[in-house]
Amino acid sequence: MTTAKRRVRMGMIGGGEGAFIGQVHRLAAALDGELELVCASFSRDPDNNARTGEACGLPERRLYPDWQSLIDGERQLADDERMDVLVVVTPNHLHVPISQAALEAGFHVFCEKPAATTLADAQRLATTLDAGDCLYGLAHTYLGYPMVWQARRLVRDGELGRLRKIHVEYPQGWLGTRLEATGNKQAGWRTDPDIAGASGCMADIGTHAFGLAEFISGHHVTELCASLGVHNEQRRLDDDGDALFRTAEGASGTLTASQVCTGEENALKIRLYGERGALEWRQMEPNTLVQRRLDEPMRVLRAGIDQPGLAPETLERLRLPGGHPEGYLEALANLYRDFACAIRRGERGAAEGVPGMTEGLRGMAFIEALLKSQASTAKWTPLDDQPRQDDAETTT
Amino acid sequence: MTTAKRRVRMGMIGGGEGAFIGQVHRLAAALDGELELVCASFSRDPDNNARTGEACGLPERRLYPDWQSLIDGERQLADDERMDVLVVVTPNHLHVPISQAALEAGFHVFCEKPAATTLADAQRLATTLDAGDCLYGLAHTYLGYPMVWQARRLVRDGELGRLRKIHVEYPQGWLGTRLEATGNKQAGWRTDPDIAGASGCMADIGTHAFGLAEFISGHHVTELCASLGVHNEQRRLDDDGDALFRTAEGASGTLTASQVCTGEENALKIRLYGERGALEWRQMEPNTLVQRRLDEPMRVLRAGIDQPGLAPETLERLRLPGGHPEGYLEALANLYRDFACAIRRGERGAAEGVPGMTEGLRGMAFIEALLKSQASTAKWTPLDDQPRQDDAETTT
Amino acid sequence: MTTAKRRVRMGMIGGGEGAFIGQVHRLAAALDGELELVCASFSRDPDNNARTGEACGLPERRLYPDWQSLIDGERQLADDERMDVLVVVTPNHLHVPISQAALEAGFHVFCEKPAATTLADAQRLATTLDAGDCLYGLAHTYLGYPMVWQARRLVRDGELGRLRKIHVEYPQGWLGTRLEATGNKQAGWRTDPDIAGASGCMADIGTHAFGLAEFISGHHVTELCASLGVHNEQRRLDDDGDALFRTAEGASGTLTASQVCTGEENALKIRLYGERGALEWRQMEPNTLVQRRLDEPMRVLRAGIDQPGLAPETLERLRLPGGHPEGYLEALANLYRDFACAIRRGERGAAEGVPGMTEGLRGMAFIEALLKSQASTAKWTPLDDQPRQDDAETTT
Amino acid sequence: MTTAKRRVRMGMIGGGEGAFIGQVHRLAAALDGELELVCASFSRDPDNNARTGEACGLPERRLYPDWQSLIDGERQLADDERMDVLVVVTPNHLHVPISQAALEAGFHVFCEKPAATTLADAQRLATTLDAGDCLYGLAHTYLGYPMVWQARRLVRDGELGRLRKIHVEYPQGWLGTRLEATGNKQAGWRTDPDIAGASGCMADIGTHAFGLAEFISGHHVTELCASLGVHNEQRRLDDDGDALFRTAEGASGTLTASQVCTGEENALKIRLYGERGALEWRQMEPNTLVQRRLDEPMRVLRAGIDQPGLAPETLERLRLPGGHPEGYLEALANLYRDFACAIRRGERGAAEGVPGMTEGLRGMAFIEALLKSQASTAKWTPLDDQPRQDDAETTT
Repeated sequence: MTTAKRRVRMGMIGGGEGAFIGQVHRLAAALDGELELVCASFSRDPDNNARTGEACGLPERRLYPDWQSLIDGERQLADDERMDVLVVVTPNHLHVPISQAALEAGFHVFCEKPAATTLADAQRLATTLDAGDCLYGLAHTYLGYPMVWQARRLVRDGELGRLRKIHVEYPQGWLGTRLEATGNKQAGWRTDPDIAGASGCMADIGTHAFGLAEFISGHHVTELCASLGVHNEQRRLDDDGDALFRTAEGASGTLTASQVCTGEENALKIRLYGERGALEWRQMEPNTLVQRRLDEPMRVLRAGIDQPGLAPETLERLRLPGGHPEGYLEALANLYRDFACAIRRGERGAAEGVPGMTEGLRGMAFIEALLKSQASTAKWTPLDDQPRQDDAETTT
Repeated sequence: MTTAKRRVRMGMIGGGEGAFIGQVHRLAAALDGELELVCASFSRDPDNNARTGEACGLPERRLYPDWQSLIDGERQLADDERMDVLVVVTPNHLHVPISQAALEAGFHVFCEKPAATTLADAQRLATTLDAGDCLYGLAHTYLGYPMVWQARRLVRDGELGRLRKIHVEYPQGWLGTRLEATGNKQAGWRTDPDIAGASGCMADIGTHAFGLAEFISGHHVTELCASLGVHNEQRRLDDDGDALFRTAEGASGTLTASQVCTGEENALKIRLYGERGALEWRQMEPNTLVQRRLDEPMRVLRAGIDQPGLAPETLERLRLPGGHPEGYLEALANLYRDFACAIRRGERGAAEGVPGMTEGLRGMAFIEALLKSQASTAKWTPLDDQPRQDDAETTT
Repeated sequence: MTTAKRRVRMGMIGGGEGAFIGQVHRLAAALDGELELVCASFSRDPDNNARTGEACGLPERRLYPDWQSLIDGERQLADDERMDVLVVVTPNHLHVPISQAALEAGFHVFCEKPAATTLADAQRLATTLDAGDCLYGLAHTYLGYPMVWQARRLVRDGELGRLRKIHVEYPQGWLGTRLEATGNKQAGWRTDPDIAGASGCMADIGTHAFGLAEFISGHHVTELCASLGVHNEQRRLDDDGDALFRTAEGASGTLTASQVCTGEENALKIRLYGERGALEWRQMEPNTLVQRRLDEPMRVLRAGIDQPGLAPETLERLRLPGGHPEGYLEALANLYRDFACAIRRGERGAAEGVPGMTEGLRGMAFIEALLKSQASTAKWTPLDDQPRQDDAETTT
Repeated sequence: MTTAKRRVRMGMIGGGEGAFIGQVHRLAAALDGELELVCASFSRDPDNNARTGEACGLPERRLYPDWQSLIDGERQLADDERMDVLVVVTPNHLHVPISQAALEAGFHVFCEKPAATTLADAQRLATTLDAGDCLYGLAHTYLGYPMVWQARRLVRDGELGRLRKIHVEYPQGWLGTRLEATGNKQAGWRTDPDIAGASGCMADIGTHAFGLAEFISGHHVTELCASLGVHNEQRRLDDDGDALFRTAEGASGTLTASQVCTGEENALKIRLYGERGALEWRQMEPNTLVQRRLDEPMRVLRAGIDQPGLAPETLERLRLPGGHPEGYLEALANLYRDFACAIRRGERGAAEGVPGMTEGLRGMAFIEALLKSQASTAKWTPLDDQPRQDDAETTT
């Protein structure tokens, strides 16, 4: 008798009406049919929670009033009913408390970035993760794009030779006006240090740019020089910033991220230059990867299961033939699919193909270095993601 | 007590392993969580059927050996278990028999295009549809793209003034070599007149181009002049073709479709020119719509729930803010979502927002006119989708 | 002792103030310093003639009141003063009379296209040319672009394999409104059959599209099917048209040209598809040539004297390294330079690298076939540039 | 009697065979017929000098063995024969000596950038200029592009509101390998500090990026933080660099320039973001200017004498209608034309519309600040183009 494959059972904290990212996660998780949403606490507002639950087709008893009761409630359910993984799509300040509790309760965690609001918190969470058998995934969605994997493969294969330069930029324009004063929820918490943490734009999207650069290049940023900006008198967190950086492996470059670039949508873009070649990828046209090679005409690699020149890891992340555009949801769905597979295979700590605690720690170290650099008159500030002495003590 | 929204129950005929389009439909139907696959007959090959069923998580008893037994079996199930809609993703020659049987059994039908292999068959199917209470949808996926709706809105709002010219083109390259001789299933049946019908390329993709042109413009092609090509000595169906056309509303233009344009992926593109403005849309960059206006700089409209200048019907078909690319699966998912909503609302015949029998009949009339023109020495051949006398008699 | 190279002495008929194309020719001829303007009759309006002459720095005695006196006057000058080549930039109806007289007087001719207003006239001019020792060049400017020569080279080298399809299009929008009624000179004569000849848009720009297609492909159009349009009730000549065509060498395709495509500038574009590859070139981005090859990623060839993959004939037509854009004037300057070199080398009939009578006859035959097809109910109309019996008799 | 307009007489130092830029200047100066080359010392190699002179059609007596004899020789010629302006296209180290001597001899100077190899030298040259009646122009070619003037106009008109961010980048790849070791002349002197000065890439192209940013924005960079690179062990000058900067008017941004970005041609690009809008211009597609406005779809302004939305100063720098691409030579020709007009009008110091000493001093100050920053451990280094005390003393 054929046994149908079991779907991974997913719970969700956050993501009620008005919280854009929750619906994005639900769509992406649904796409490949690998996961099913079985429980949630979408909002502390009971009405919002109920309405979202109904829209999602959740039974009332699996709709919890808050995250604590969700974790408690699910823990008491039978093995064949209990959620497997908790998706955390709350504002930043709750990422660590919820992730920590879920991991301690034996649930896998798939969390929105950033992993934490401080590096120390992320390090403590890492300790918890290491101590258990669970998986931790981080929604660095852009690392789910097939052509990002292709770019990484070309770098690894030496197509670019020794890397010299990395330029990554992430301009958005949506906070160009004081949107937080209009009641916009997204803008509200992202500009509030009590909820977002010590950084605004850089924590929100700078980390994406940083993660993308390190992922594709395989390099590690060791020092940076930042100039962050706040383009509104009443705003308390950076909404823009530029940085120079250098890597341990010998490259240098620039990283810019902004939420006040009027008219820009979500224009994450990366260019990498090596001795023998170069790559250029733009998130807004994600199915194209431009490759330059010394003394050869430019090549344009195109996404598609039937397209020439693609690596196995690229093809695995594609669903359609060339010219049938795949986009953002498909990229996030790739992370969900790989996370579900890792759960089935019984992996621990990090799910293969999915950003996790390592990327989370790097991202937090990046933010802390940025903020330190911003406050400093010295040109270079080191980026350090090693546990600091006092943290190490605290967590022992 | 909150009652969770019921998902529309979907069955599928065709779409086993190796049949690309089946998986595409399953992904698109899953995306918004409006439908769930409950039964199928994916392949007449029992092994393939079983493997695909397992991969889809279907219980064995809802996996049927052929389409007849699926329709029979589902008919006998209880109201709260029986499928609501049958998705037909077989090769062309089975579209009508299966759709006919399903409609007669009281099931809604969502069918891959073309609706039939002859206009007469499509007309008979239309009669069946008209006689019952069911819905019929046709997977003209490109009509699910938000910016296609935006283009239609701009035309309707008079932004272009009186339309003069329509140029639509759909070059692909995948049949540039004799792929059908290599065992490729997709190529095999598409080049076999017994399965695909009397047209190859034009039925497969020319109909998409035609449907897109009529949808956006609101015009009706009344006559055309075709030059079809077969670029392989052993091939029996057109793999390429160009046509001039004129519309009842006074525009003229060109339509080209090809599967032998080496190196092209899926480059459907349309341009419309009117007295006061023009539009250009390309499927491979579906989130961009170029608008030209008399004596003004070019405008570039961009998809996104937060983007300026978009119509309500465009916004309804978007899930993400600007710069987060949505693609082909999201376009098809829009059709599925609208079809599911129409089922819930108890609509009959055609689902609002979803191409159906009207588009199916136009497509078949277009193919027949193309073939007639190809065989003719006259310049213009009329396109006629009215029931012919003998057909009318037969169906009475 | 070093002898400085002598500049070719150039006269000009037409091109006074308000006649855009005259200044274009003067700029292009000046660029490489191979020619110098020594005499002209810019306009029959004495004031305009004088003003333009002054702006061009011409001495009064070389400024003639009309083309007849220019030819007469120059004929009587000494060998080391007399013009070498007459540039004809008048409206169409004067192309043949002036060219004929100039050739008969022993002057080389460089003429704006079209060569004539009828095929028979062009054939008579060809007979004159054949009978003498002069050169005749035709300003098919687009055939001066380096990447057009590169495309032709790739086709000749078999990079595309056997050609299957040619699609060429030339949309403009400037006659989208009734500009001729506003006093616009350009629009005025181009829409007047007494001056422009029997065709408007097709003679003006359709011939460019046609010439480009035959030049790059090396194919010869043998039959076509045209649908021309006039989009203004008071207009007497075509302002738009679409055509299907077939070539003697086995390709088929479409040609469209229009001057009523609102918002389009000068968007000449050609695509060629062969069994093994494809090319795409757009005049508005002339330094880029897209090459597709079977089972390989797309290549983008770029103009520049230091760019990889370019043929000698491409490089000869470039002045700058990659990324320093060359444009329309440089393309026309290439024709002038080659024409000047051919004069120095004593070539006869056609100047190497410069379109001439052959292209002129083809263009006229194309226009005549278009008009015949437009008036016909038959699908295909042959294109024939062979002297007709009665013409042959007339010219004997 | 009509008096033909006199052409401005131009001499040239440098620009013999193998020196790319000399021919570029000759082409650009010739285009509009405003100047004529009357004398030169193209190379100290007599053969090269003679061959180039012959190719340019110069009489032997106006071909001088070196720059000193050219200045002396021309000074002694009659008023109606003597050159008006000296074009200096030598390597950098000769810019000041030649310019100084020419100005002192009463000749106008049009010089390649950079103005000097040190700021102090440039300041001394400025003093000479101020003391006389001559004009000084600097070949910041990119400031001759029409759409650069359009961008500046839009900024001035407040279309962007208060400027927040400026990002300018200039990647090239031609020095990605050690080209100077292959005998390439261009690479040779540009990487030799004795000839190029204390900076390589930044003096060569970084100054262009800097000048473009200040020209369009109207802002003044007050401090910067640089990270320069040398990507070859035997190279002695920077071949790459990134910088953060801030302006007196309140904007911040990044400037990057590189000659080791493999595969890049000449990809100068600038983006400016303000409170109400944004602009983007790319030199490699110079006829397009992208404009973003708050809450409106993106607009694409296009170059062309018939295109909508262009300012008078943009139109004055265009020769052709939309869609007829103008490029690099036309941009430089605009500077030559404006310089010639300024000579005719008897302007002094700076020619209207042409970069001159002010831009030269800013460029040198920029380079000095970059080098100082590179050597410093402080984050910010001020940019100062005011005469330093000791210079001031020297020049008093």
